[in-house]
Amino acid sequence: MNPQEIIRNISSQSSKITSVFFVGCGASMAELYPAHYFLETEACKIRSSIYTANEFCMATPHSVNEHSIVITCSLGGNTPETVAASKLAMEKNAHVIAITHYADSPLAQNAHYVIVHGFEKNYAAKLEKMTNALHLAVEILKLYEDYSYYEQMLNGIQNIYDIIENAVSYILPAAQKFAKDYKNAPHIYVMSSGATYRVAYAFSICLLMEMQWMNSGSFHDGEFFHGPFEIVEKDVPFLLLMNEGKTRPMDSRALDFLQRFGAKTTVIDAKDFSLGSKISPEVVDYFNPMLISAILRVYAENLAIARNHPLSQRRYMWKLQY
Amino acid sequence: MNPQEIIRNISSQSSKITSVFFVGCGASMAELYPAHYFLETEACKIRSSIYTANEFCMATPHSVNEHSIVITCSLGGNTPETVAASKLAMEKNAHVIAITHYADSPLAQNAHYVIVHGFEKNYAAKLEKMTNALHLAVEILKLYEDYSYYEQMLNGIQNIYDIIENAVSYILPAAQKFAKDYKNAPHIYVMSSGATYRVAYAFSICLLMEMQWMNSGSFHDGEFFHGPFEIVEKDVPFLLLMNEGKTRPMDSRALDFLQRFGAKTTVIDAKDFSLGSKISPEVVDYFNPMLISAILRVYAENLAIARNHPLSQRRYMWKLQY
Repeated sequence: MNPQEIIRNISSQSSKITSVFFVGCGASMAELYPAHYFLETEACKIRSSIYTANEFCMATPHSVNEHSIVITCSLGGNTPETVAASKLAMEKNAHVIAITHYADSPLAQNAHYVIVHGFEKNYAAKLEKMTNALHLAVEILKLYEDYSYYEQMLNGIQNIYDIIENAVSYILPAAQKFAKDYKNAPHIYVMSSGATYRVAYAFSICLLMEMQWMNSGSFHDGEFFHGPFEIVEKDVPFLLLMNEGKTRPMDSRALDFLQRFGAKTTVIDAKDFSLGSKISPEVVDYFNPMLISAILRVYAENLAIARNHPLSQRRYMWKLQY
Repeated sequence: MNPQEIIRNISSQSSKITSVFFVGCGASMAELYPAHYFLETEACKIRSSIYTANEFCMATPHSVNEHSIVITCSLGGNTPETVAASKLAMEKNAHVIAITHYADSPLAQNAHYVIVHGFEKNYAAKLEKMTNALHLAVEILKLYEDYSYYEQMLNGIQNIYDIIENAVSYILPAAQKFAKDYKNAPHIYVMSSGATYRVAYAFSICLLMEMQWMNSGSFHDGEFFHGPFEIVEKDVPFLLLMNEGKTRPMDSRALDFLQRFGAKTTVIDAKDFSLGSKISPEVVDYFNPMLISAILRVYAENLAIARNHPLSQRRYMWKLQY
């Protein structure tokens, strides 16, 4: 079923939904963030929360019940913590939707509804997970509260994949420059704002720490001036993800500061890819994370080449019990 | 007015509250997190969100209205972004409560209610900000939904200050050891779970990055195994904040891994200070962050001494316009 069919089906069974929970681990949790951010910003009655799966299992929120929708996510569909969270949510009579690449995975088997997304085909396919989660959130808001920009949002969902494929078609030189400039960095700080905040987080903990064994930290660039900016000196390496939309002034303020004090700064700016000319201004904020994630994937691939350290190389993951 | 009086006053004016927003910057935002975490976990109808102030101002959630309570926080009461957020919330007819150390500060002047907290007197006073925010959340839940462990929670709020003062009275040797062991660390990773998650964040971005100009990153220890753990090697410096309560198994799992692979690990464990013997098990989770924050303050002070870098030293803050 597609997101619209799933939410219509839930609404035919349950006229009252009070809470939505987004549950995953690592990159899969981060990819649920734009959907959570959308509901936090746009909803007036529906509660929305995002959890790393083990916290959801151990300190389960009281409102997980027949009036809640739990959206779980795992690429392979076999992340044990997320499978357990999905199972727990079903036991508590929540409506459970799994987003995964594998239709017959344990995650899919422990959910009422499954959205199977692409991955290998191209960069756009890698963002189907994030985009489907957002689409679910939009349908929930539309059906349970109403949403003024529903059509604009559906148009955005239709267009984002082409925007992504177009963007990645010409960023190789920029990605290669990033790889060359940062391959020996002792640590890299990543920051952004709005719906893209956890794209910075995911790049830091997954692409840099997990897949490149590089030291890294991430934070919201609205927080930059309340602590982290004191680390800035000439050539301290930063990666700034700039958004089109309401939170752009925060991104710009951080950029001004980085440039003023000579930090080693790489910017990935959604505006350079005309996101705002292709998606309505009322909803453009929510599509920055898809575009920027795709671009970052190319940056990471080139960093891996420059460092001669494949993205699939691990010390512990898939090798040990822990 | 105290938290109970404030929320009773609001309830006499407004029988319906749908959303609560916690708004601040840096450490002040992080100190609101336990209150937000409490409402997210325990409430079934009330929405709860936490925002860095500029994001609240720029991408203001639609639900900020006469049915919402906005709790803003700034130690000095003059953080421009937080003052602006408070003002904006008042313009939108929300019920606005400011938590600050200064009764006549701009923040206090832009709120309907003010809680003035201590700071200088002792370590316990430094945690009045966090504890008052939690108390507000408890009163909100009690009045607008009901809460089964209200009495246990009030007892906890009464007892936590003595628990803190007792704990800090004998941790100097441990803090000095930490300072000696980590003073030359190229970076320090900090992690925790549950209500304490953003204590790790605040220590990383404020105490280490801002006040010691040390490289750092922080994350939830439930996320550790989904990315960051690949950075672990012998002697990589970690600081793990362990909780009493439901999420402790996550903390323990991270500790096992750090020890197994020889990371340089310092643990601050609420159990060592008998938190669970002094506060009811139903509510103990919510008091870890106060106890651990106070202990971390002593650790930071000793790190500052060992590094000959006062906690008040800044490159940019208070010195420049930015």
